[in-house]
Amino acid sequence: MHNEPEVAVLRYGHRPGRDDRMTTHVGLTARALGADRVILPDNAGHSMETVEDITGRFGGPFEVELTEALNGVIRNWEGKVVHLTMYGERVQDVEADIREAHAEEPLLVVVGGEKVPFEVYEGADWNVGVTNQPHSEVAGLAVFLDRLFDGRELDREWEDAENRVVPMATGKKVVPADEE
Amino acid sequence: MHNEPEVAVLRYGHRPGRDDRMTTHVGLTARALGADRVILPDNAGHSMETVEDITGRFGGPFEVELTEALNGVIRNWEGKVVHLTMYGERVQDVEADIREAHAEEPLLVVVGGEKVPFEVYEGADWNVGVTNQPHSEVAGLAVFLDRLFDGRELDREWEDAENRVVPMATGKKVVPADEE
Repeated sequence: MHNEPEVAVLRYGHRPGRDDRMTTHVGLTARALGADRVILPDNAGHSMETVEDITGRFGGPFEVELTEALNGVIRNWEGKVVHLTMYGERVQDVEADIREAHAEEPLLVVVGGEKVPFEVYEGADWNVGVTNQPHSEVAGLAVFLDRLFDGRELDREWEDAENRVVPMATGKKVVPADEE
Repeated sequence: MHNEPEVAVLRYGHRPGRDDRMTTHVGLTARALGADRVILPDNAGHSMETVEDITGRFGGPFEVELTEALNGVIRNWEGKVVHLTMYGERVQDVEADIREAHAEEPLLVVVGGEKVPFEVYEGADWNVGVTNQPHSEVAGLAVFLDRLFDGRELDREWEDAENRVVPMATGKKVVPADEE
């Protein structure tokens, strides 16, 4: 977010067709909950387009890119690396250390697909479990980002949006973004 | 969770095939993040089986059921109803009221699929947006539950599990649940 070291989310692994929606949801969740960028495997072009479309309509800044080199992104990251996995340390035990590190330098958050090689566990500064239960990589990412930013992401403002949703007790209200 | 009024999650709408993984992830996220029960549309039997399988292996208590009457579940709910929607009031503005209500009575959390009729907006005590941005119903549910329970769900203990994951800084460790 603005005035903070970058947070990027790396989707590690994607099976076209089967994973399209999950990978798209990883990207949209990264955007909505305060990350600055999502990096997708190069076979996830369809998800990239959807996330770019939403960014065009509802605002940014938010970047989407594809990579051929998932391991290279991790290895060459200049900052700290968190890998979200149900086998990792409990988020409630390590989140304070991670917040402190992120105050100083960029953070890469790796979100696994089906098979994550041991190299990723070893390359991460923290392997973190949002519960040690099997659930959803999208849910894990969401809770992790909300805790990383301590809720600040919910007050984020959006630039260059076409549309803006006006929060309502009942009903739906969407206005052009320049109407205030 | 134990010693608290019930929290049930209702998945409103399901398209077999296309929504299988999302509906399964809604169920698994509900279980992992402290809800007591998930209610799925009656055409989501495949997702029910997956969630029941995980509950058998990693523990409960957690109930999964199917319903033919999504609107009836909302109408007949004895307690308060929250509907998660990007058009709703900001979660950070209403969460304290919802926590207070849940201290007294059961809470139904409605998670939409594609098309949610206006009846649901009207039947809810709160329409709540986890951001007013388009992202993922799984992400919205996850952040909502983590805030509802104020993180207590992360310390939940599991009964009748076959397996237990031991949190680790690096690597994977799963032990039979009776080994302490």
